[in-house]
Amino acid sequence: MVSVSDYQKAKLKTISYFEKANIILTSLEREKIEIADFGLNDLERQGLELITYINNEHYCAKELVLFPLQTCPEHKHPPVDDCAGKTETFRCRYGKVYLYVEGEPTKNIKANIPSPSKDYYTVFHEIELHPGDQFTIPPNTLHWFQSGEEGAIVSEFSTTSRDEYDIFTDPHIIRIPEK
Amino acid sequence: MVSVSDYQKAKLKTISYFEKANIILTSLEREKIEIADFGLNDLERQGLELITYINNEHYCAKELVLFPLQTCPEHKHPPVDDCAGKTETFRCRYGKVYLYVEGEPTKNIKANIPSPSKDYYTVFHEIELHPGDQFTIPPNTLHWFQSGEEGAIVSEFSTTSRDEYDIFTDPHIIRIPEK
Repeated sequence: MVSVSDYQKAKLKTISYFEKANIILTSLEREKIEIADFGLNDLERQGLELITYINNEHYCAKELVLFPLQTCPEHKHPPVDDCAGKTETFRCRYGKVYLYVEGEPTKNIKANIPSPSKDYYTVFHEIELHPGDQFTIPPNTLHWFQSGEEGAIVSEFSTTSRDEYDIFTDPHIIRIPEK
Repeated sequence: MVSVSDYQKAKLKTISYFEKANIILTSLEREKIEIADFGLNDLERQGLELITYINNEHYCAKELVLFPLQTCPEHKHPPVDDCAGKTETFRCRYGKVYLYVEGEPTKNIKANIPSPSKDYYTVFHEIELHPGDQFTIPPNTLHWFQSGEEGAIVSEFSTTSRDEYDIFTDPHIIRIPEK
């Protein structure tokens, strides 16, 4: 769990990234920024900051923030009930993102795998996203991503988000989305 | 139809609004900006400029530009085959938008109804959107919208977009999305 003071610090830092990218949030949204450390207690290296604009039974839109060199750990979105897993389109708005998905491994990938968890990164097909670039990740496909040195903001357009069903490669990870 | 020179002019103007709002498009996207005059030949008053980021069988994300005081004419998204009509979330990113939907008419609405088409505006429940504000329009619900004096940019998150099935109140309107 992120401590209250670390949460406040991370929230202010997240807001500063939105400001850099001219992305405007309401005051209620600023209050509801989610700080995900995935239970690893190593937020600056493995974590994600986000705000959900809308998540209904059909579609979802979020804005994701990555601090410099921060990594969102490897995971996939499995089918839930009679729905296929979540399909996600990542659109880079600010900074640079190295995205890794299943497929032919890229030689000499540009990201640095977080050393304490290196066994839990298993897919290495690299896609480099600069502002304006986007990539759609099919359902049930392992993926992870890391920002460059400036940090990054990514708009996520997707089918309905059910984060509690996500499957992470690292068994130590606990993903409980804040309500 | 918009003439080639008017189209080029409108496209450059659209790009200038994206630049004002720090929204970055790829060069391919800049080429594919859609200028919709709805067959009314009065683009500055009734029209819409847009780029579609993604439109798959589940969800759609677009960025809409309105020039100052420009109006997107009244329409709705009906059911198509076994799909309910399109649900749309409008999120204001820049400028100001007056959105009108079915419901209790607002007295003294702030938009100016485009005079040549005034009979074809019939819903007047006003929602004012400033940057960071958003509103979700249910399927099959009449709506229209107009920007304030600065123009506006609106992110649209929605179910699949099938513009060719849209029903406009004004029978003179022709909506053929460019491919």
